[in-house]
Amino acid sequence: MQAPDKNRLSINTATVRQQWNLKQIIDGCARHDIRGISPWRDQVQALGLQQTAQRIRSNELFVSGYCRGGMFPGVDAQARRAADEDNRRAVDEALALNAACLVLVVGGLPGESKDLAGARSQVRDGLGRLLEYARNVGMPLAIEPLHPMYAADRACVNTLEQANDLCDELGDDGLGIAVDLYHTWWDPKFYAQLERAGRKRILAFHLCDWLVPTRDLLNDRGMMGDGVIDIRAARLAVEALGFTGAHEVEIFSAHNWWQRDPDEVLETCKARHQSHC
Amino acid sequence: MQAPDKNRLSINTATVRQQWNLKQIIDGCARHDIRGISPWRDQVQALGLQQTAQRIRSNELFVSGYCRGGMFPGVDAQARRAADEDNRRAVDEALALNAACLVLVVGGLPGESKDLAGARSQVRDGLGRLLEYARNVGMPLAIEPLHPMYAADRACVNTLEQANDLCDELGDDGLGIAVDLYHTWWDPKFYAQLERAGRKRILAFHLCDWLVPTRDLLNDRGMMGDGVIDIRAARLAVEALGFTGAHEVEIFSAHNWWQRDPDEVLETCKARHQSHC
Repeated sequence: MQAPDKNRLSINTATVRQQWNLKQIIDGCARHDIRGISPWRDQVQALGLQQTAQRIRSNELFVSGYCRGGMFPGVDAQARRAADEDNRRAVDEALALNAACLVLVVGGLPGESKDLAGARSQVRDGLGRLLEYARNVGMPLAIEPLHPMYAADRACVNTLEQANDLCDELGDDGLGIAVDLYHTWWDPKFYAQLERAGRKRILAFHLCDWLVPTRDLLNDRGMMGDGVIDIRAARLAVEALGFTGAHEVEIFSAHNWWQRDPDEVLETCKARHQSHC
Repeated sequence: MQAPDKNRLSINTATVRQQWNLKQIIDGCARHDIRGISPWRDQVQALGLQQTAQRIRSNELFVSGYCRGGMFPGVDAQARRAADEDNRRAVDEALALNAACLVLVVGGLPGESKDLAGARSQVRDGLGRLLEYARNVGMPLAIEPLHPMYAADRACVNTLEQANDLCDELGDDGLGIAVDLYHTWWDPKFYAQLERAGRKRILAFHLCDWLVPTRDLLNDRGMMGDGVIDIRAARLAVEALGFTGAHEVEIFSAHNWWQRDPDEVLETCKARHQSHC
């Protein structure tokens, strides 16, 4: 019944990062015939950019996204310049890895600020600066709206509508959205804003489940099927819009999946992908 | 500098409910010259409705809201009928207490459902039924949008925009919104939707602060001034729209304020109300 293409499954390396280093994760994906991967910058730095790129290529994996750039707001111009430079390096690394996009977690309130509207302006400005650079080198930027519970400390872009507004303002060319169900499933405008985004803007599609109860704001995400999100409905909706990218599984789970045998985790991801995505 | 009217301070009894029973809370508010109170149904039941009403009257307190009705979605018609009956009793109790409004936490996904849109339809329908009853007896109903992190299990109305849409659909007469900053502060449309709501729809205004980090999804709310919400800006905005109701402090705090001397908690609420609200 409308099961997903198994070749579109991708593993965000956060899912097994407590058990394996990046080399082991790449080998694990290949061994389990999972074709996509989305690595984090710190892991790439540890393994080395060229070695990571080579290893991903030799295992014939695709990179569904690179995690991550962003964190635009800063307490002063110097902090923002440092973020700009770091973000340009992230773009370069994403290119070296042949990533489908650079995922952007845009950042929250800088320092002791309570000025959320100001932080959002800083995001727009920083994003505009990075976009100029990324467009020149041809790396798509994917704004990832994060759940409102992260508005203060991680990302002050919290809805698909905001992300669409930013795309309208800054221009679609080379700019789009990473749709993560964990962050957006609750939104009464979820489907309307997906449609507004359309095929062109949807650059990444991240999956996990929302557990009830959720015991931790950061590291209690669920395996697909263990929570309340109608993942299949959302996947069918993005594909009905023409999205042909990966189904990227990203599970932060301190007390459950990070405690398990990583081979079991990957096998479970594959099975749940077929049964629940 | 635009300090608030101290006579508008109200204490939601959840703030000291771990230390005191309702009788002690009423006496405590009176002793600390806090004029408003917002009690919960279980506490009122424990003390007795008539005794609660009498004690509030004799201490010359006002009731800024009654917590709470709602929980409209049900697994079947029988469950929804039971909720309807219970909600009508809540309206009657609110009347007996001379409450400014009955606060509605609308409920989340019923049973094992993943149909969020369906739950939202059930909320609209249940709210419509209750509204007919409440209008007849003259008790205003205040829809409280809850933070999106409670969409599954507590309330699937998660934004002021949704609440405004419900008011549009069901009619303003006797229906409005409880604006709780903890639940809504992150919303990029917060100020626009406040303005859309206007004086007529803003029936209650609840305060506390968002802590960084927040360690628990339920019981880690902050005292005003200890977090990142610009509470004064929000309070001035609702008053600029003509709101003349209470500033109701509602702090669920398992590891901090619920562990303290409740007299200290009330004194701190008074001080922070003046300095940060």
